[in-house]
Amino acid sequence: MSDDVDARLKLLGIILPDPASPLGAYVPALIAGDMLYVSMQGPIQAGRPTHVGRIGDAIGIDAGRAAAEVATLNAVAQIRSALGGFDRLDCITRLEGCIACTEDFKDHATILDASSELLAKLFGDRAGHARSVCGVRNLPGNVPVAIVVTARLRSGQGH
Amino acid sequence: MSDDVDARLKLLGIILPDPASPLGAYVPALIAGDMLYVSMQGPIQAGRPTHVGRIGDAIGIDAGRAAAEVATLNAVAQIRSALGGFDRLDCITRLEGCIACTEDFKDHATILDASSELLAKLFGDRAGHARSVCGVRNLPGNVPVAIVVTARLRSGQGH
Amino acid sequence: MSDDVDARLKLLGIILPDPASPLGAYVPALIAGDMLYVSMQGPIQAGRPTHVGRIGDAIGIDAGRAAAEVATLNAVAQIRSALGGFDRLDCITRLEGCIACTEDFKDHATILDASSELLAKLFGDRAGHARSVCGVRNLPGNVPVAIVVTARLRSGQGH
Repeated sequence: MSDDVDARLKLLGIILPDPASPLGAYVPALIAGDMLYVSMQGPIQAGRPTHVGRIGDAIGIDAGRAAAEVATLNAVAQIRSALGGFDRLDCITRLEGCIACTEDFKDHATILDASSELLAKLFGDRAGHARSVCGVRNLPGNVPVAIVVTARLRSGQGH
Repeated sequence: MSDDVDARLKLLGIILPDPASPLGAYVPALIAGDMLYVSMQGPIQAGRPTHVGRIGDAIGIDAGRAAAEVATLNAVAQIRSALGGFDRLDCITRLEGCIACTEDFKDHATILDASSELLAKLFGDRAGHARSVCGVRNLPGNVPVAIVVTARLRSGQGH
Repeated sequence: MSDDVDARLKLLGIILPDPASPLGAYVPALIAGDMLYVSMQGPIQAGRPTHVGRIGDAIGIDAGRAAAEVATLNAVAQIRSALGGFDRLDCITRLEGCIACTEDFKDHATILDASSELLAKLFGDRAGHARSVCGVRNLPGNVPVAIVVTARLRSGQGH
């Protein structure tokens, strides 16, 4: 199973980033029972934002989708780091998105689809997630999009 | 038990809508273990928003509450569709609300109460949920309110 | 274990508030299986907000952190009330923060760290949580910060 995800990453030419350090007094990911809770991830590479500003203003749709993809890979890197691979992952249960955007922005779904589609490519039938998204005023460090991924582990494999 | 909910729907004169299709590459509802995760639901009927704009501006309190009720019925329709009825539902665990509103809006609780009260009417002692709500800039498709419902299933009935 | 938390509260000179009543038709905290879901808590003392307005404007960083601490103690009071102490708590799984702030605010992490740090002081190695935070337009009652705490119970102790 893990080989599937690693093989897909390779096919897509994706090298996962190192999992980012938390911005404060919390953990980047937490295993509790049969659940994995990943802290909010943004479009950060090597400790710096790849995009800043609001979608609909400084950031267009394509750049917003690119930012969502960077955030998603950060979440995937946290999953791999927390689980030591992808074998233990049963499925992604939730994807929560926050989009920092202009007042009249409506295309939240288009932005977050970049994240959902990437999860589908990587995790196949383990990607299926319930989703929510809202348009917020701003996000930590002025990034345009941030996501929260929650996942379920295969049973009998929690702590 | 299911008969209870169906009987209450009938008593209230409510015909549940067909569950809405997702707006992107995600699932409308996901069963994982003993949990049911329903994707964010808005005030959509037959594929079109029943209300658009912000509460406190285009949308008053009563219309905002009506929009919350439509969103809630969509969530209930997703629950019924995912579970094939209401027998397997143990309880609603969380109700998360997002309200697109004007800058000085304060009555988030009044809006979301329309949703909580409807859940209580329909699910009785299985309705009890923890709740959160915030006032956001906007929501997908310019709807004024959207909710996320998460529920627990009776044990031994997950996949 | 519970003694630990109670001893730490005493050492820090903290007397937990009475758990706040909900603002509507929901429950302040819900035990479901091995999870505890606490409803959103704000900086409320004796039924009144300790802080109102936005961070970055009416409310500075220090006051915002103080408000986050009040909200956190309210969440801890809800945990104690729901569980009849802290023995049954396995760990805090998630901390979700909403910050009502000005347009150019960036320091969400600094505000929410006040909450994370207080949880760490009180719960020690049971405090470790995944975290998310966003900057919103406003919150119920015009408070500047509100949090949602979710926790896991020791196994075999749910209902």
